[in-house]
Amino acid sequence: MQFFDLDKTDVPKLKAALQADDEALKVILSEYHASEIAILFESIHQDDRQRIINLLDVEIASEVISEMHEEAHPEELLLKMHPDKRTEIVEELDYDDATDIISQLEEHEQKEILGDLSEDDASNIRQLLSYDEDTAGGLMNTEFIKINLNLTKKDAIDEIIRQSEEIEEFYTIFVVNDFNIFQGIVSLKDIIKAKGNAKITELVKADVAWVTPDTDQEEVAKLISQYNITSIPVLDEQMHLLGRVTFDDVIDVLEDENTEDILKISGVSEDEELSGNWVEAVKSRLPWLVINLATAFLASSVVRYFEPTLEKIAVLSAYMTIIAGMGGNAATQALAVTVRRISLYDLTDNQAYRTVLKEFTVGLINGAVTGLIVFIFALVFDANPMLGFVIFMAMTGNLVIAGVTGAGIPLILKRVGIDPAIASSIIITTFTDVFGFLLLLGMASKLLL
Amino acid sequence: MQFFDLDKTDVPKLKAALQADDEALKVILSEYHASEIAILFESIHQDDRQRIINLLDVEIASEVISEMHEEAHPEELLLKMHPDKRTEIVEELDYDDATDIISQLEEHEQKEILGDLSEDDASNIRQLLSYDEDTAGGLMNTEFIKINLNLTKKDAIDEIIRQSEEIEEFYTIFVVNDFNIFQGIVSLKDIIKAKGNAKITELVKADVAWVTPDTDQEEVAKLISQYNITSIPVLDEQMHLLGRVTFDDVIDVLEDENTEDILKISGVSEDEELSGNWVEAVKSRLPWLVINLATAFLASSVVRYFEPTLEKIAVLSAYMTIIAGMGGNAATQALAVTVRRISLYDLTDNQAYRTVLKEFTVGLINGAVTGLIVFIFALVFDANPMLGFVIFMAMTGNLVIAGVTGAGIPLILKRVGIDPAIASSIIITTFTDVFGFLLLLGMASKLLL
Repeated sequence: MQFFDLDKTDVPKLKAALQADDEALKVILSEYHASEIAILFESIHQDDRQRIINLLDVEIASEVISEMHEEAHPEELLLKMHPDKRTEIVEELDYDDATDIISQLEEHEQKEILGDLSEDDASNIRQLLSYDEDTAGGLMNTEFIKINLNLTKKDAIDEIIRQSEEIEEFYTIFVVNDFNIFQGIVSLKDIIKAKGNAKITELVKADVAWVTPDTDQEEVAKLISQYNITSIPVLDEQMHLLGRVTFDDVIDVLEDENTEDILKISGVSEDEELSGNWVEAVKSRLPWLVINLATAFLASSVVRYFEPTLEKIAVLSAYMTIIAGMGGNAATQALAVTVRRISLYDLTDNQAYRTVLKEFTVGLINGAVTGLIVFIFALVFDANPMLGFVIFMAMTGNLVIAGVTGAGIPLILKRVGIDPAIASSIIITTFTDVFGFLLLLGMASKLLL
Repeated sequence: MQFFDLDKTDVPKLKAALQADDEALKVILSEYHASEIAILFESIHQDDRQRIINLLDVEIASEVISEMHEEAHPEELLLKMHPDKRTEIVEELDYDDATDIISQLEEHEQKEILGDLSEDDASNIRQLLSYDEDTAGGLMNTEFIKINLNLTKKDAIDEIIRQSEEIEEFYTIFVVNDFNIFQGIVSLKDIIKAKGNAKITELVKADVAWVTPDTDQEEVAKLISQYNITSIPVLDEQMHLLGRVTFDDVIDVLEDENTEDILKISGVSEDEELSGNWVEAVKSRLPWLVINLATAFLASSVVRYFEPTLEKIAVLSAYMTIIAGMGGNAATQALAVTVRRISLYDLTDNQAYRTVLKEFTVGLINGAVTGLIVFIFALVFDANPMLGFVIFMAMTGNLVIAGVTGAGIPLILKRVGIDPAIASSIIITTFTDVFGFLLLLGMASKLLL
């Protein structure tokens, strides 16, 4: 009995259940956890999702909606629902989840949904909608447990029990003073363990990490990961509590950020939805390919310049592709290691310098080894030691350039405040193409003609 | 007062402090949190780390060691420490952290350290060392709060307080029956809120996710992320509790897995340490470059085959590099989107089919648009419409191949149970090189000679 092990047969099972009438489907659905229904939603049609959501109780339906991936468009389900049920579901959602979903809608649709809510709920969500979604403000939940510093153990426990009627999940209790200024945190365990006459002021831990609403989400993730905390308070400039960001938000952020890194390094716009349609994909990738085309013209103009040489020694074309391809791949290797290192650690100037030096050495050795293989190949197949020498030198030189640019360019971008992942393989391979052709064809013109 | 905001001046400040004598350095260190010292360690010399660790109290030193990145080699600090202090530090560490660090040592060094520990500690760590580090067993902590199902509210609270003397951090309380069989979880909050005469059996939540020691770490991360839980129990086949994996372990796993994805897709061995030296980097990357060289020979043999054509129309060499380069980059785009999508979602056969179809369409459109630009270029600079037509067709064809292989190959690998990220850009670009050259030079031979 492995409880939640969603096995491969569940998707076909649920799909088959869609043939049943509403009553039977309801019974089948009751066997699934909301997270499971959310996963199953990814492989069924929007109309079927709508039917299922309409069949579920408000409580389960709101859980399913909050667990759905953004790409399955939970906001569309909300939009097409009966307004009364929709209002109930939105009221059931945590403010941060409701905000995430509502933020995907057009302004007039947002107004329609918010208009049906209580004034308190609507103004809370409106406030959250005003923060940039990549910041602590955009991630935070505005519901949390907050107690006064001067409470006694017994009163504090009563207060926590009272507040926890509304806030089901909490990991940390926030402490404020009489002026509502944040003072630190306390754990339920420490309160329980305290002596009967203890006051919260004796138990509070003041030395804790916190952020402001405009703190970047990557910074929030770093703090939560670094201090192994389940939630971090979000404070305004007067040190009033605005909300909390919890570890599960951070896990989602990490997954998103890493998708972005892989896409950007590969020359795909970070906004491309992984399961988007071809129109979105063309919009996201064509601009990069056009940039690549411009740089490719640059590289090909080097080849054009040496056309007379190529007319005389046509086999150089075959070696050209090898040198350029190897340079591109070596540069991508250096780039991937460096970009990832920059995103995990803050490098000092000295470390940055040593990184470039290391990549220089790696390029030199890998270039010499693979250059030697091609040299031997040229001896055997073209019986031309001088051609082999030219190729060996071009390969070694190009792999050194690959290492230095693959590591150096993202480090320079980081230093001047540009996202280093923008130094995608498209940009870096231009260098290795241009320099690879220059080295090979330039030397060939001097030494082989 | 942003408490833990490690600013850029801290590193130079601590480095300067290294000039001070031990007493002064101790005072300066006392102002820093263990996590901060661990970060600062990344940019100072091993000898200085050793000096600082030796100056710190056992409690802080063990925290610093557990927070250090694997790549800063905390195990070497332990090894070079006075054996008595080392034993105290290891005893202070959580078993899972101690195991992670000790596992980096040679077997005789492990024996030396374990020999100094109490029999209980040593056997716990020995047990953990036996699990694969990429599994729940390798991640789990063997210390947790466990109570009997039949306890009353009051006895349960007493028992939790007693056990929490040993286990500082806990998020979930595990419940077992009289036969020590896992029954579910309960939160401290629910116990506190329960009526005075309530028993744990009325409060326990049985419907929870759990894993076995050999569950893959990615699966563990998925469950914790999916169900938003702070910790997941690890059970043996008889449903006895072995340990728990907590959300902070999962955050580390996600960072590691994502580094691996980026490295593999770029043709770097997943074992390469980001801050490793050039020897490790050569070992990790040279094999991929040699594979790339073999595939590059394949592509260049196509060029060789068409040498007579290239001798007559040397300008084809210049266009060759454009077609190959564009194909490689378009393939990398399709690859990145598909690999990332596979790693986040389980795709059905139908979704896989539609993904390849989408990439076919994207390749067709992006190929036609960029092909048209090159066609115009060929008209203007080479005044040769037929050459332009050949290039247009080759570009379109190659970008279609790029899309279909970039998406199709990782999907096929996934289907047959091979890690899709192994379909690195090195493998995929071979296809676009070979087919790009075949299309361009083949059509040129037929139509332009």
